Amino acid sequence: VIEQATALTASEMVTAYYEAWTRGTFDEDRLRSILAEDLVFEGPLAGRRVGADAFLRGVRDVSNALKDFRLIQRLENEDEVSVLYDGDLTRPAGTHRFAEFFSIRDGRIRAINLLYDGTEWRKLAAS
Amino acid sequence: VIEQATALTASEMVTAYYEAWTRGTFDEDRLRSILAEDLVFEGPLAGRRVGADAFLRGVRDVSNALKDFRLIQRLENEDEVSVLYDGDLTRPAGTHRFAEFFSIRDGRIRAINLLYDGTEWRKLAAS
Repeated sequence: VIEQATALTASEMVTAYYEAWTRGTFDEDRLRSILAEDLVFEGPLAGRRVGADAFLRGVRDVSNALKDFRLIQRLENEDEVSVLYDGDLTRPAGTHRFAEFFSIRDGRIRAINLLYDGTEWRKLAAS
Repeated sequence: VIEQATALTASEMVTAYYEAWTRGTFDEDRLRSILAEDLVFEGPLAGRRVGADAFLRGVRDVSNALKDFRLIQRLENEDEVSVLYDGDLTRPAGTHRFAEFFSIRDGRIRAINLLYDGTEWRKLAAS
């Protein structure tokens, strides 16, 4: 019997990432197995943040608010994936578009650049 | 002499698109040769708009306001390209991040999904 390490491809890793939080549950253990501990995240409100912990709190909030997830476009190469999608959220209420660019190396998602229109989020933060 | 129709690839078309408006000039003729007349554009403030004309007015505004363009990530396949970049603008002043997803078919850019944080643009529109 040959034991074989079956590392996920970059594409499979990003698929697993979305499966872990867009299907009515939030699988934190799964996400921690996919994301680098020192993940570099950039987003419109967060700016640049290093570390999976702070990022996972944000993903949990969006996951809890998510009613529907619709993929629009997805591109990938050996170590990068870009995804454009719409999410129907309860908070901020409505349909929001997201672009997410992933960098994968050594079996982990190392960096995520997330973009969305922060307008409704800034209103929530100010209220 | 063999005359050869050298159609641009999807990648070359998107490169030509950015060259036409990010290098200190706005080459409308070049852009019209790249974009489908019935281009389908979606953006945070515009919503969904069909037609190259309205889109080109928006590109001209951004081109005129652009001080610096910095590519962050770019992915491509045979008929799609996604680009993440920062633009330093005079109006709205500051550095703005953009994600742009292109669909190319039959030698033209047919659809562009553009995403950015509309916060500062909404302030301009309201002022």
